[in-house]
Amino acid sequence: MDKPQVLIVMGSDSDIPVMDEAAKVLRQFGIPFEMRISSAHRCPDRTTALAAEAEGRGIRVIIAGAGMAAHLAGVMAAATILPVIGVPIGGGALNGVDALYSTVQMPGGIPVATVAIGKAGAKNAGILAVQMLALSDSGLAAKMKEYKESMATEVEEKDKALQRKRHGG
Amino acid sequence: MDKPQVLIVMGSDSDIPVMDEAAKVLRQFGIPFEMRISSAHRCPDRTTALAAEAEGRGIRVIIAGAGMAAHLAGVMAAATILPVIGVPIGGGALNGVDALYSTVQMPGGIPVATVAIGKAGAKNAGILAVQMLALSDSGLAAKMKEYKESMATEVEEKDKALQRKRHGG
Amino acid sequence: MDKPQVLIVMGSDSDIPVMDEAAKVLRQFGIPFEMRISSAHRCPDRTTALAAEAEGRGIRVIIAGAGMAAHLAGVMAAATILPVIGVPIGGGALNGVDALYSTVQMPGGIPVATVAIGKAGAKNAGILAVQMLALSDSGLAAKMKEYKESMATEVEEKDKALQRKRHGG
Amino acid sequence: MDKPQVLIVMGSDSDIPVMDEAAKVLRQFGIPFEMRISSAHRCPDRTTALAAEAEGRGIRVIIAGAGMAAHLAGVMAAATILPVIGVPIGGGALNGVDALYSTVQMPGGIPVATVAIGKAGAKNAGILAVQMLALSDSGLAAKMKEYKESMATEVEEKDKALQRKRHGG
Amino acid sequence: MDKPQVLIVMGSDSDIPVMDEAAKVLRQFGIPFEMRISSAHRCPDRTTALAAEAEGRGIRVIIAGAGMAAHLAGVMAAATILPVIGVPIGGGALNGVDALYSTVQMPGGIPVATVAIGKAGAKNAGILAVQMLALSDSGLAAKMKEYKESMATEVEEKDKALQRKRHGG
Amino acid sequence: MDKPQVLIVMGSDSDIPVMDEAAKVLRQFGIPFEMRISSAHRCPDRTTALAAEAEGRGIRVIIAGAGMAAHLAGVMAAATILPVIGVPIGGGALNGVDALYSTVQMPGGIPVATVAIGKAGAKNAGILAVQMLALSDSGLAAKMKEYKESMATEVEEKDKALQRKRHGG
Amino acid sequence: MDKPQVLIVMGSDSDIPVMDEAAKVLRQFGIPFEMRISSAHRCPDRTTALAAEAEGRGIRVIIAGAGMAAHLAGVMAAATILPVIGVPIGGGALNGVDALYSTVQMPGGIPVATVAIGKAGAKNAGILAVQMLALSDSGLAAKMKEYKESMATEVEEKDKALQRKRHGG
Amino acid sequence: MDKPQVLIVMGSDSDIPVMDEAAKVLRQFGIPFEMRISSAHRCPDRTTALAAEAEGRGIRVIIAGAGMAAHLAGVMAAATILPVIGVPIGGGALNGVDALYSTVQMPGGIPVATVAIGKAGAKNAGILAVQMLALSDSGLAAKMKEYKESMATEVEEKDKALQRKRHGG
Repeated sequence: MDKPQVLIVMGSDSDIPVMDEAAKVLRQFGIPFEMRISSAHRCPDRTTALAAEAEGRGIRVIIAGAGMAAHLAGVMAAATILPVIGVPIGGGALNGVDALYSTVQMPGGIPVATVAIGKAGAKNAGILAVQMLALSDSGLAAKMKEYKESMATEVEEKDKALQRKRHGG
Repeated sequence: MDKPQVLIVMGSDSDIPVMDEAAKVLRQFGIPFEMRISSAHRCPDRTTALAAEAEGRGIRVIIAGAGMAAHLAGVMAAATILPVIGVPIGGGALNGVDALYSTVQMPGGIPVATVAIGKAGAKNAGILAVQMLALSDSGLAAKMKEYKESMATEVEEKDKALQRKRHGG
Repeated sequence: MDKPQVLIVMGSDSDIPVMDEAAKVLRQFGIPFEMRISSAHRCPDRTTALAAEAEGRGIRVIIAGAGMAAHLAGVMAAATILPVIGVPIGGGALNGVDALYSTVQMPGGIPVATVAIGKAGAKNAGILAVQMLALSDSGLAAKMKEYKESMATEVEEKDKALQRKRHGG
Repeated sequence: MDKPQVLIVMGSDSDIPVMDEAAKVLRQFGIPFEMRISSAHRCPDRTTALAAEAEGRGIRVIIAGAGMAAHLAGVMAAATILPVIGVPIGGGALNGVDALYSTVQMPGGIPVATVAIGKAGAKNAGILAVQMLALSDSGLAAKMKEYKESMATEVEEKDKALQRKRHGG
Repeated sequence: MDKPQVLIVMGSDSDIPVMDEAAKVLRQFGIPFEMRISSAHRCPDRTTALAAEAEGRGIRVIIAGAGMAAHLAGVMAAATILPVIGVPIGGGALNGVDALYSTVQMPGGIPVATVAIGKAGAKNAGILAVQMLALSDSGLAAKMKEYKESMATEVEEKDKALQRKRHGG
Repeated sequence: MDKPQVLIVMGSDSDIPVMDEAAKVLRQFGIPFEMRISSAHRCPDRTTALAAEAEGRGIRVIIAGAGMAAHLAGVMAAATILPVIGVPIGGGALNGVDALYSTVQMPGGIPVATVAIGKAGAKNAGILAVQMLALSDSGLAAKMKEYKESMATEVEEKDKALQRKRHGG
Repeated sequence: MDKPQVLIVMGSDSDIPVMDEAAKVLRQFGIPFEMRISSAHRCPDRTTALAAEAEGRGIRVIIAGAGMAAHLAGVMAAATILPVIGVPIGGGALNGVDALYSTVQMPGGIPVATVAIGKAGAKNAGILAVQMLALSDSGLAAKMKEYKESMATEVEEKDKALQRKRHGG
Repeated sequence: MDKPQVLIVMGSDSDIPVMDEAAKVLRQFGIPFEMRISSAHRCPDRTTALAAEAEGRGIRVIIAGAGMAAHLAGVMAAATILPVIGVPIGGGALNGVDALYSTVQMPGGIPVATVAIGKAGAKNAGILAVQMLALSDSGLAAKMKEYKESMATEVEEKDKALQRKRHGG
C-alpha cells in the first residue's frame, strides 16, 4: 500500500461515521490516507507525537474531527507545520456549536482550517485536502476540475428530473 | 518565600488584569502561588511540562485562564491529576462564549472546573482554590467562613447605606 | 457503611440517569457518597439545610445537578464553604444552555465549579470530586493516575481495533 | 410614611440605576415601596427572610433585579406566595442573556414574572406591579388607563413633531 | 358556571396541549377560566377586542401563549390594563428562543409577565395568575401556601423513595 | 407634493437615524414617501389604522422598523394586503437579535419581508421597496439597473484606488 | 401553460418538501410559476444565468430557498433587479440559524426579502410574492383580501370548536 | 515585482485594517501577493472572474474576508479549484457570528477553510496560506518552523518578564 499522504484523526470511535465522509473523498481521488483514533485529553502525548511525527512520515495534510470542547485540531496544529483541517462534530447538548467555536476561534499564530459541523464538513475536509495536494500535482488538479464539473452536472440532472416530474412526460 | 501551592497560568500577558483577581484572593488568604504565562498553542511542550511537573513541585491546584478557542485549561488537565480550574476570558468577537464553551464542554474523563467569564470568574477561581485547599487545612476553612460572613456583612452595609440615603438622615 | 464524603444532590428524580454517571465514578474509586433529591425552589429550606449541615456530617465535596434556571448548585454554594461542583442538565427547550449559564455565571464571591452539560459533565463531576479528595489522600492520587493511564490505553486499543479493521487481518 | 406595598430588591448597589426605573413608576402612581440590597448568594438567609416576611409586613408584590446567574428572583419566589417580578440585568460578558435565562426558565411550580433585560424591563416591572395592585384598587386602575392614554398621546406628539420637521413650517 | 376570572388565549389549536398545563392549575385552585384561540396576525381585530373587552367581562388576568414571532401576549397587553402573562411556545426551528425574545423583550411601557418556554412555563403561568388573584382573596392565598407545602413534601417523598431504593429495605 | 407611495413607520423617534437610510434611497429614486412614528404597543389602534388605511391612500409598500420584541411590522402586516418590509433595529441588550427573531419568524399566513439589522437593513428596505414598485414601472426598473451598475463601478474604483496606493504612483 | 411569473429555486432536491409550501400558495392564487433546482456553489454560472435571464423571460418575483451557509438568494439577488425572497431552510446542526443569518444579513445594496425558517417561511414567501404581484393586479388584490378573511374565519372556527368541546353540547 | 502567489480579496475597503494582518504575514515570509476589493453582491461577475482566472495567473491560494452574510469566500470557492481561506469579519450587530456561519457552514462539495473572526483570523489566514505553499517548498517549510519556534520563545520571554516583575530584581 502507498505511504499515506493525509492523516485523518478523530477523538473517539463514535466519530467514525462522520469522518468516513472525508475518507470517501480521498479514496475517490486515489489519495492514500491513514485513519486514527487519538484524544487530545485522554492520550495527549500520543496525540502530540502523532502530529509531530506526521511530516517525517510523509503526511502532508492532517484532518482532525472532534466534538464538544474540541481541542484535537488545535493541539495537533500546535505540534506541526502541516496544514490542519478541523471538523467540528455535533451530537451533544449544544449541537456542535461548542465544537465549532473550539475549533475555529484559534488565537493568532496557530490556524485550524475549519469546515462545517458534521458530515458535510467532513466531506469538505476531504475535498480541501485534495485541493491542497493538487497545488503541486497537476493530475490531481485535473481530477478536481472534473469533480466540480460532475457536481454541476448532477445538480442539472436533478433539475431536469424535477421539470419532467412537474410537467408529466 | 514559601513554595507555591497554586499555579495560575494564562495564555497571554494581556490576560494579567483578569487573572490578577485570582491572585488577589490567594494573597488575601496567605496562600503562596505562582503566576505564569504559557500557551497551549504557541508553546505546547512547555505548557504540558508545566502541568505535568506541577504536582512534583508541590502545586496542589491549577488555575488556567484563556480566551477564544481556550484550550489551555483542557490541555493542562490532560497532563495532571491535580484539579484544574478554568477561567474563560472574553474580549474578542464572541465576548467569551467561545472561551466558555471551549473550557466547560470537556468530554467525559478530563474535567475542568469552570467558572464565570472574565474578572468575576477569576476571583471565584481564587476562592474555589482556597475551598479545595481548606479541605485539609482547618485554619483555612475558618478563614473562609469569616470571608463568607464578611461578604454578607458588606451587603448588609450597602443595604443600610441605601436606606439612609433614601430616608434622609 | 462508611460515612459519605461526597453529597450528590439533584433537583428532581428525573435527573437520576444523568447524575448516576457521577455516582459510578465515585463507586469505582471506593468513595462513600450520598445521593439526594432536593429542590432550590420547591423546598428551599431543606436544600439550604442540606448544604449547611454537610460539612458537619463529614461531607467534603458537593455535586449538584439541575436543569432550566438551575439555581441548585448556587444556592448550595451560598450555604457552605465546601467546594460545590455544578452539573447543568439539558432536555428542555434550550437544551441545557439555560442550565449552563445559570450554573457557571456565578457572581464574584460564590464559585460553582461547573462541568459540561449532561452525562459527560456528571461523569467529570465525579472525577473532579476524586481529584479534590486526592489532594490529601495519596492512595486516591495513585488510583487517579492509574485511571488516567487506563483511559489512554483504552483510546490506544480502539485505535488498534480500527487499524485491524481497515487493514484486514 | 405609608407602609410599603412593593418591595424592590437588587443584588448589588451597582444595580440601583437600573432598578430606579421601577421606583420612578411606583412613585408616579403614588405606591409606597421599599428598595433593598440583598444577595441570593452572599447573604442567602437574609434574602430568604426578606421574602418570607414580606407578606406579613404588608408587601404585596416583589420586584427582584440581578445580573449574571441571576438567582435572586427565583430564591425569593421560593420563599413567598407573593407574585415575584424578575428583572434580568445586563452589563457582563453575556449582555444579560445569562440573567434572562436564569430568571425566566424557572421549573414548573415556582414562577417568576420576567420582564425585558435592563432599564426597559425595570420600568415594565414597575408598571406590572401597578397592574397587579390595580386588580383590587379601582382608583389605581383608572390611573393606569390614563397612563396608557398618555403614552399613546406622547407617540402621537412625536409623530406630529416629525411631520412638522419634515414639511417645514 | 361561574364567570371566568382568567382568560387563556393561544394562537393556534396546536398549542392546546401546552396551554392545558395552565388550565389544570386553575382548575385545581377552583378558578373559573375561559380558553380561547385567537391570533395576533390572522384575526387582529378579534384579538384586540378580546383583550379590550376582558376587563368589562370580569376577567382579571390574561394568559397568552404563542410560538415563533410570538406577538399575541404583546398585542393583548397593548389593549388592556389587566396583567398579561406570556407563555413562549417552542417546537419550531429555533426551539422557542424566538417566542421567548418576542414575548419578554417588550419595550418600556407595556409589560408582559413572561414565564419559561413550553409546558413548565404554562404551568407557572397558571400559578402566577393564582398568586395575583390571591392578593385580594385570603382563601386563595391559604390554598397557595398549602400548594407550596405539598410541593416541598412531594420532593421530600421522592428523596425518601431514592434513599430506600439505594439502601435496600 | 406627490402622494406618498411608500409608508415608513418606526416605533420611536430614536429610530429616525436608522430609518433615514431607507428614506435616502427613496429620495434618490424620486419616490414620494411618508415617514411616521407609531407604536404597536403604545398606540395600537392608531398603528392598525395607519396600516389598514394605507392602501386606500395610495400607499403601495410599507417599511416598518422597530427594536426589542419588534411587533410593529407584524402588526401592520396583519392589517393590510400591502407588502410589509421589516427592519429589525438593534441597540438594546440583545443587539437586535430579539428584533430580528420577532420580525422574521412570522407564522404561516402573514409574511414580513425582513432585511438586515440596523442601517444596512434600512437601506436595503428602501431598495427592496423600489424593486417592488419597479415591477410595474419600467422607468424605475431602468434606474434600478443603473443603480446596480453604479454600485459595481464604485467597488471597482475602490479596488483601483487600493492598487494605486499599494504600488505607489 | 401560462408563462411563469414566479421562479422558485432551491439548492437541492431535498428542499422540495419545504419549497412546495410556496408552490401551493401560488397554485391557490392561480399564478403560473416555475420550480428549479440550482446551487450557488455547485453550479454558480447556471444559477447566475437563471437569475439574470429571469426578467427577460417574464419572471417578476424570485423565491430562493437554501440551507446551511445559504448563499442562493443573495447570489440571485446580485444578478437581477427583481425582488428576491429568501427562505432559510433548517435541518442541519444549527437548525437553520446559519441559513437565516446567511440570508437576512445582506450588506447594504443588495436586499433579500427574508421570511421564517422552513415551511412556515416558504408558505409566507408564496404569499409575499402574491402581495407584490397584487400591487399591479386588482383581481389578485381582491383574492388576497379574501384569503386574509378566510384565515380569520378559520381561526374563529377553531375557537368555536374549542368552546363546544369544553362546554359539552 | 514577483508574480503574486496569494490573492487576498475583501468585500469593502473598510475591511483593509483586518485583512492587512494576512498581508503582514505573507510579507514576513517573502510571498508575493495581491490585495483586491471585490464584492460577491455588488459586482458578482467581476468577483467570479477574479476567482476563475486566479489559477491561470499563477495564484495558488485565495484568502477572502467579508462581513455580515459573508458570501465572498463561498462564491470564489465555487469558481476555482484553488483552496479558499475565509475570514469572517465582525463589527456589525451580530459581532461576526453571521459572517462566521455564512463562511464556515458551506454545504458538502465546496469547502471554505474558515479561520477565526477578525484580525486573529486574518493573521491565521496568512499563516495557513504559507503552510499550504510550504507543502511544495522546503525553504518555506524551514521558515515556518523558525516562525513557530519564535512564537514559543516570545511566550517564554513574556513569562520571564512577568517573573522578574513579580519577584523584584
